Amino acid sequence: MSATAAEASIDAFHRGRFFLAQPLHGGHRAGMDAMMLAAAVPSDFRGLAADLGSGAGGAGLAVLARCLQARALLVEREPAMAAFARLTLALEANADLAARASLLVADVSLAGRARMEAGLADRSVDLAIMNPPFNEARDRQTPDGLRKAAHVMDEGLLERWIRTAAAIVKPSGTIALIARPQSLSEILDAMAGRFGALDVKPIHPRPDADAIRVVVRGLRGSRRAMRLAAPLVLHEADGNRFTAEADAICNGLASLFRD
Amino acid sequence: MSATAAEASIDAFHRGRFFLAQPLHGGHRAGMDAMMLAAAVPSDFRGLAADLGSGAGGAGLAVLARCLQARALLVEREPAMAAFARLTLALEANADLAARASLLVADVSLAGRARMEAGLADRSVDLAIMNPPFNEARDRQTPDGLRKAAHVMDEGLLERWIRTAAAIVKPSGTIALIARPQSLSEILDAMAGRFGALDVKPIHPRPDADAIRVVVRGLRGSRRAMRLAAPLVLHEADGNRFTAEADAICNGLASLFRD
Repeated sequence: MSATAAEASIDAFHRGRFFLAQPLHGGHRAGMDAMMLAAAVPSDFRGLAADLGSGAGGAGLAVLARCLQARALLVEREPAMAAFARLTLALEANADLAARASLLVADVSLAGRARMEAGLADRSVDLAIMNPPFNEARDRQTPDGLRKAAHVMDEGLLERWIRTAAAIVKPSGTIALIARPQSLSEILDAMAGRFGALDVKPIHPRPDADAIRVVVRGLRGSRRAMRLAAPLVLHEADGNRFTAEADAICNGLASLFRD
Repeated sequence: MSATAAEASIDAFHRGRFFLAQPLHGGHRAGMDAMMLAAAVPSDFRGLAADLGSGAGGAGLAVLARCLQARALLVEREPAMAAFARLTLALEANADLAARASLLVADVSLAGRARMEAGLADRSVDLAIMNPPFNEARDRQTPDGLRKAAHVMDEGLLERWIRTAAAIVKPSGTIALIARPQSLSEILDAMAGRFGALDVKPIHPRPDADAIRVVVRGLRGSRRAMRLAAPLVLHEADGNRFTAEADAICNGLASLFRD
């Protein structure tokens, strides 16, 4: 699969602040998850942020759009999705953000020398964000090959991605990830001894509903205990409109945490 | 230390539905935590509930007051606190609840034959609730000996208590515990392979504040994934009054989960 204009849709994010070239059919399309992940980055962040498993670049560009002193390294394994990221960075409307971004085609789950040879060097970034693929296959079949690659979580994949993040961030660097609540135990185990000062932010579709996502942020090497933050609620109890907080977060106007 | 009327205060719970004889000075005094833990029990629960580390019996009696088909076994290691539980059960005002309650002086952290010889038999209860002691010593000194016993969490204590709960509940029996959010990783690890279908309920003092407690409930032997429930918020954003939900839960008028 190659990315051409005919196959791509050009979608506006952050109220037109930037655009993503995304596969029109199949493949992983960025949305709320990428925007909420990017919102975990403090607004005053400056330095190099790695967007691990970037897809078309949604989370990485959302960081660049809100954090004007940030640079981003998009890391994507799938050549077809990396091609969409390349299209995204080539869009005229993204020129100012793309000047602070670069793309690396590499597999985040590599370790040791293989990881370093793929371009993911030790202590090379200030922050790593990730929206790791998760196993939707148990819930419903996803026949499309690319979509499957983005959603089917191998056993231990979360641990491998967090291990890579721990290797590539500088001392006292930051990690942030978005995942499903049922992965929380695996996430906390993988963070142990690598990242501390964890902030866990539950995300609920409505005020009374169970959480559908958690965002977890941590500091490399910190020993401070975990905190469970007040949740983000996406929609009001009645109707489908976003809450004011969710609207601000998804449009790059607010941080997910009180920084 | 022996419990006499001179040392005890008699405190009303559930708007006078029952009373606790508690140490006036020092020792662990039951309060919100015990009431929120008891609220994790479904209102239609019937059978035998073990209140592990019961102190004066607050959580156990709160279960009896709301679940009219329930019986309770209060399990307390400290003889001085067990004496307060005995006083509680002897109070005239508690006579109807006390008829469904018994007391066992035993150490919840025992294992194997020692546990069984202490009176905690395998598959003997339908439900186990616990408010395990936690380490407040790191935050502030607690010079009083009894209070220290109730609050200082040994390394691995949570794991030992959850192991005991797994041993004493019947197949598909229930566990519920209340703990601090920073213990969540240890709790999830100790639950793994023992209890599934975990429901995690964060408890926040105010809508925008970090959680101060989590209540975790699970089913013995279940493999269903964890759920992260909508939080309980104790106080309105302004002022010190309880939210309607917190008031109902602390007074035995509602369950913590939607059962």
